[in-house]
Amino acid sequence: MFELDAPIAQQAIAQLADHSPLIHCITNTVVQNFTANLLLAAGALPAMIIDPSECQEFAQVTDGLLLNVGTLHHQHCPTFFHAAENANRYATPWVLDPVAVGGLTLRTEFCRKLLSLNPSVIRGNASEISVLAGEATSGRGPETQLSANQALDAARQLATTIEGVVVVTGEHDLITDGHRTLKVSGGSVLATRVTGAGCALSALCAAFAALGGDRLHNVASACWMMSRAGEYAAEQAAGPGTFAVHLLDGLAQLRKMR
Amino acid sequence: MFELDAPIAQQAIAQLADHSPLIHCITNTVVQNFTANLLLAAGALPAMIIDPSECQEFAQVTDGLLLNVGTLHHQHCPTFFHAAENANRYATPWVLDPVAVGGLTLRTEFCRKLLSLNPSVIRGNASEISVLAGEATSGRGPETQLSANQALDAARQLATTIEGVVVVTGEHDLITDGHRTLKVSGGSVLATRVTGAGCALSALCAAFAALGGDRLHNVASACWMMSRAGEYAAEQAAGPGTFAVHLLDGLAQLRKMR
Amino acid sequence: MFELDAPIAQQAIAQLADHSPLIHCITNTVVQNFTANLLLAAGALPAMIIDPSECQEFAQVTDGLLLNVGTLHHQHCPTFFHAAENANRYATPWVLDPVAVGGLTLRTEFCRKLLSLNPSVIRGNASEISVLAGEATSGRGPETQLSANQALDAARQLATTIEGVVVVTGEHDLITDGHRTLKVSGGSVLATRVTGAGCALSALCAAFAALGGDRLHNVASACWMMSRAGEYAAEQAAGPGTFAVHLLDGLAQLRKMR
Repeated sequence: MFELDAPIAQQAIAQLADHSPLIHCITNTVVQNFTANLLLAAGALPAMIIDPSECQEFAQVTDGLLLNVGTLHHQHCPTFFHAAENANRYATPWVLDPVAVGGLTLRTEFCRKLLSLNPSVIRGNASEISVLAGEATSGRGPETQLSANQALDAARQLATTIEGVVVVTGEHDLITDGHRTLKVSGGSVLATRVTGAGCALSALCAAFAALGGDRLHNVASACWMMSRAGEYAAEQAAGPGTFAVHLLDGLAQLRKMR
Repeated sequence: MFELDAPIAQQAIAQLADHSPLIHCITNTVVQNFTANLLLAAGALPAMIIDPSECQEFAQVTDGLLLNVGTLHHQHCPTFFHAAENANRYATPWVLDPVAVGGLTLRTEFCRKLLSLNPSVIRGNASEISVLAGEATSGRGPETQLSANQALDAARQLATTIEGVVVVTGEHDLITDGHRTLKVSGGSVLATRVTGAGCALSALCAAFAALGGDRLHNVASACWMMSRAGEYAAEQAAGPGTFAVHLLDGLAQLRKMR
Repeated sequence: MFELDAPIAQQAIAQLADHSPLIHCITNTVVQNFTANLLLAAGALPAMIIDPSECQEFAQVTDGLLLNVGTLHHQHCPTFFHAAENANRYATPWVLDPVAVGGLTLRTEFCRKLLSLNPSVIRGNASEISVLAGEATSGRGPETQLSANQALDAARQLATTIEGVVVVTGEHDLITDGHRTLKVSGGSVLATRVTGAGCALSALCAAFAALGGDRLHNVASACWMMSRAGEYAAEQAAGPGTFAVHLLDGLAQLRKMR
């Protein structure tokens, strides 16, 4: 397991700024605003479209898709499912953020069903990744007691199953395609006090997954960008409120550095 | 009527940090993000779950429940109602935030119906509390012309009816169980220029209501924490934008002080 | 085409602060919070009500209405349409924000249908205004390649058709009633990196349209207030995160200046 090299991440960030991928986010209503602002700051274009027929049309022009089940409602499951099917039809990368799977039946069963469509990327905490890989869990909300390292075997297995990339975030981030595993260290513990920091990272993973080249490196670059921005924000911040605001600034500054 | 003693509030804040109660917020879509961030900053764990079956399951693990009718839709009323019933079944404290009752029929009738389930806490402005207590009102949106003191009798009567705690927020906050009444002074007028400051305080009341001990003191401690954080934020702020951000920082700083 | 005179805008801003118009926003879930905070900062009162029966009641007391189709769902179209009908019945000004029309069929056809109800104001970027005026378009999300000037003829024609005011925002803003055209220069490019900056300006246009006097001048004053606040924010900001926060402060400072 190696730490991602900074130059690789910086190149991916520059590529993101050049291409401004359009990312369709079907995500929970708590974090829509922060997710959109984070994508804009980093250099991508967010679009939050929810009507089934518009999702169908939009699949033809979007560069990446995020599905986040945080505020899933059973009536919306078909829209999520068809969006993933359409992404596959158009060879658009799509990311699954399985918020709080394990603790709640609807999302747990639905996320397992989505696995059959082979998400390009799954981003979750150690508990969520372990559940999706078939292991037991505690399930007390989106929080986790496991460390990222403890979920590494589960992540590798899951990545192999979906033939995609799995990201386990925690004190440090692990990014694996089942064969190779990269590590991104650093960041700030303040991110755990900002709602949607993980959800927004998943959207950023979709943006980086839309770039050409090695997807493992690209997705790890999303984590790297978030971690560096988090360190910048932690220096500026007096608490989680100012942290969230400076995190967006930090991303924009990384975007503009060439 | 006495001002809440600072040491009592500080002890409740420490208890909140130790227990990190998990608060299920069924709240309006305008303030979900701010509410979640405010709970995280203060030391609680937010969860915004909306699917009926997931709400049912989640009732077994959550430590407190918030119902806020700000963007109520008639299709969601059953989910709200069952969530309150389940909270009662599991002896979980639940808070009602009756946003803008009086002016609009659906929410006014629905909030009156919810009263029959005896909310543990009701948090509103003077106008909202007066309406729920059965008095006439003006009903121009969530704003109020009444002072908190003018609604004190209504608040006491309402608290007696529900056998719970009623919080009237305004220039200062009054917290009553019908027999005893506490006052929390201070805070900042800038909070009235931040959408969801009251809604997020209701969520914080749910978090403090989940603590052991005297519920009247605990709920008043939520108001005290918010007022102190507001004063900190007002010192840092140049307007309502920076105020909202520093308010979160202020809460986090109070949480860490032991 | 003349630049709007600062004293005219300052007078309108003072009028807004005196009257605090109540603005009903039926808007997309991504920007609800920012929109509400922006209206509060500028001196108006936001209300986000979504239930059909409550929308019907609220039409009798609101001073202005915003319809924004950003996260339109086909099930919500009747609520939007009736809200516009009711606004017309009560002679309440209403604003249409046709987010991303052209690229997606549901919203494009629905916005065209809404044109038959003669919105008081339409606010969009050059691409959106061109589409509504009947011209072809690219349709890659809410972004636009056209300059405001290139859409001026389309804007004039559209304003004449609806007998209202059309605002084209971009590097500078053009505000026209078909006969007269005003220009508002300045602002900050950082606003393009904040989600909902345009959506929130549309809400502000609804607030200013609710004032007495020349509607063209009033709506242009909304653009002027936003541009001046944007310049203040750009001076304070280190990126899009801090910019959004200081933008709200800037609006509040302009509101308090008499």
